[in-house]
Amino acid sequence: SFSFKAIRWVVTMAKKVMKRSSSRSAGATIALPPVDRKTRKLIVGLANEVEKAAERRRDPHLDIPTRSLSNVRFNKSRKIIEMGGQKNRRHLFNLSQAKSYMQTLLVATGCKSLIDQQKTTSIRGLYYLLKHTIEGTREETFGTQDECDPIIEDLEVTLESLREQLHVYASNRGGMVGPITLIDSGDEIDCSRMGSGGYSIPSIVEEEVIRFKKCTAKFILHVEKDTVWRRFNEDKFWRKHNCLLTHGGGQPPRGVRRMLYRLHHELKLPVYCLLDNDPWGYYIYSVLKQGSINLAYESKRMAIPSARFLGLRSIDYEKCKLAPSVQIALSDSDIKRAKQIAAYPWFAAKKAWQKEIQKMLSNGFKLEVESLISKDISYVTEVYTPERLADHDWLD
Amino acid sequence: SFSFKAIRWVVTMAKKVMKRSSSRSAGATIALPPVDRKTRKLIVGLANEVEKAAERRRDPHLDIPTRSLSNVRFNKSRKIIEMGGQKNRRHLFNLSQAKSYMQTLLVATGCKSLIDQQKTTSIRGLYYLLKHTIEGTREETFGTQDECDPIIEDLEVTLESLREQLHVYASNRGGMVGPITLIDSGDEIDCSRMGSGGYSIPSIVEEEVIRFKKCTAKFILHVEKDTVWRRFNEDKFWRKHNCLLTHGGGQPPRGVRRMLYRLHHELKLPVYCLLDNDPWGYYIYSVLKQGSINLAYESKRMAIPSARFLGLRSIDYEKCKLAPSVQIALSDSDIKRAKQIAAYPWFAAKKAWQKEIQKMLSNGFKLEVESLISKDISYVTEVYTPERLADHDWLD
Repeated sequence: SFSFKAIRWVVTMAKKVMKRSSSRSAGATIALPPVDRKTRKLIVGLANEVEKAAERRRDPHLDIPTRSLSNVRFNKSRKIIEMGGQKNRRHLFNLSQAKSYMQTLLVATGCKSLIDQQKTTSIRGLYYLLKHTIEGTREETFGTQDECDPIIEDLEVTLESLREQLHVYASNRGGMVGPITLIDSGDEIDCSRMGSGGYSIPSIVEEEVIRFKKCTAKFILHVEKDTVWRRFNEDKFWRKHNCLLTHGGGQPPRGVRRMLYRLHHELKLPVYCLLDNDPWGYYIYSVLKQGSINLAYESKRMAIPSARFLGLRSIDYEKCKLAPSVQIALSDSDIKRAKQIAAYPWFAAKKAWQKEIQKMLSNGFKLEVESLISKDISYVTEVYTPERLADHDWLD
Repeated sequence: SFSFKAIRWVVTMAKKVMKRSSSRSAGATIALPPVDRKTRKLIVGLANEVEKAAERRRDPHLDIPTRSLSNVRFNKSRKIIEMGGQKNRRHLFNLSQAKSYMQTLLVATGCKSLIDQQKTTSIRGLYYLLKHTIEGTREETFGTQDECDPIIEDLEVTLESLREQLHVYASNRGGMVGPITLIDSGDEIDCSRMGSGGYSIPSIVEEEVIRFKKCTAKFILHVEKDTVWRRFNEDKFWRKHNCLLTHGGGQPPRGVRRMLYRLHHELKLPVYCLLDNDPWGYYIYSVLKQGSINLAYESKRMAIPSARFLGLRSIDYEKCKLAPSVQIALSDSDIKRAKQIAAYPWFAAKKAWQKEIQKMLSNGFKLEVESLISKDISYVTEVYTPERLADHDWLD
């Protein structure tokens, strides 16, 4: 009986989506930006098909690209991780699929309403926006946020729209400093004059929000953590070496990845990464360079195949003559993870990377970038990084 | 034998601290800012006493104020949590205390070296700076960072210096937007023109780094999370209501607390807090208002006793007619924590707060600020907050 009610509800909602679309835009007459008009059209199209199928007593379905390792492949010529062609068909007239079908349409409705209102929200906010008891039942649209998040990703791949285009944003951690002036939401931002905290990279950095005005930097140095970033900023590394300095607060969120991508492609800035010498650091590099398995459908808008790994490298322990006290023993899960990463197709074919990972395993320990402080507080900014840049000493 | 070596090592180091102090400052002749000169003098004084005592074959000791609940009291007239007078004496000539004695002196040396170089680092960085094998032994100065962090706090209370004055910084999460122009490290920052991400509040916001230039705001609205902050920023709440809008990314780090304190005291801006209706939200408010137990020695430079709790309140579920679907059941630890908080001396005497906490317990659920989105995406910025501000409807 839930399934029956869900069906009725889906059809009613599909109609509403289309109706609201006309009345709202007529009433409010907000001129939507072109990108929003496009996304909106895709959503309305989805609802339209559902309604038509249901009225003809046909079984409406949605074909949703499969987001799993089995449907991901490494494109050797483009050097990015891409999604394959597998799709899962989700039927409305199917007891086990009716609810997720309904949820997909619900998320679509929510995103359309955000677009119409020209507002954005977090994944948590969208969950609250859509969570309610389904009329006439005791069933809730979503039990927890865990049910809602994958549906957002489903919709992203189905509509081939970035999350940001659906007006849903992720985290905005990440910072930037350096000789670039950009326009962010109408404000002119000179990233070389942003004080000690730098420019906070927003989660939505699409052309509609951010335009690059002027940039004299020659490259980008991307570091893993804000603490390391701060050392480089305090030592004015970006001024001496004429570069942009970014960090992603660990694994960089989408906004940071997209920003790096745009800076790299639009301004032709090479990207150098300075990350910890551990499986997590390798993985951050892997995601920046080839894309991630989970967000494979966004690789083409985020991955930077020519990004370079400046360090820390396993040989640096000897090369920099570090003290034994900076070693952090590898855990069992580190070892397992390192072996997995070594087997990734995009690392498997690279001798230098196999050597790098093998060396870490034979070292038996990992190293943080901060461990270079044991040499001197500014060793990383005054010796380590300049030397490696000058010597073209990096992994590709 | 370790203890004997530690003693010799401590004395050598104490001498070095004093020696380096003169040669360095003579050689480098960096004019230290007054606040740094003061902190440096305190550190040198500490080393001086150690050396003198050791040369006279006396047992050098350090008296370190006790940082525990037993040594914390609520000052009813100042309305902040303060440290009591209890101290622990740490002896050098004592097997069990020699190491932590040495560590304290080591951290002091590290901070002095940071001051001399006019550089700052994170607690992780300081750990790496000081971690090494003690000469002639197999003993390391610090096993893990967990051993180093409390020593930093020991030194803060002993020297009565803020961590920031010791040139060690904490996290820099937290953001601000609104009609204020400030000077941050020489850069003029107009916080009303910082794009979608706002001004990133640094971890060090002392007068030497940040000066307020111009501010036309009438109050501060402090919200818990960046996601809520973003809603307010997107709806230009700060422009309509002429206020500063801040967030602390959850429990605000020291930089944010100190910034709020300075804005409140120097610019006379009242502070209103919008936090989740759960024990964690209560606790954030408690820390902002009275100070925290762990950092009680910093209350006088961080606590804002007149801060107000705008919400979310337990009665809001009925008052705002929220749907049952937004309820989040209280866990056992939530209930335990709520009762602990109700018993805090600064809440115990307040009827309204007792009622508030009792109501949450009898509700049996907690509420996030984001739950107001279920009414309307901008309900929180257009209805909830303006109404409560207009009606002076808050808890004190």
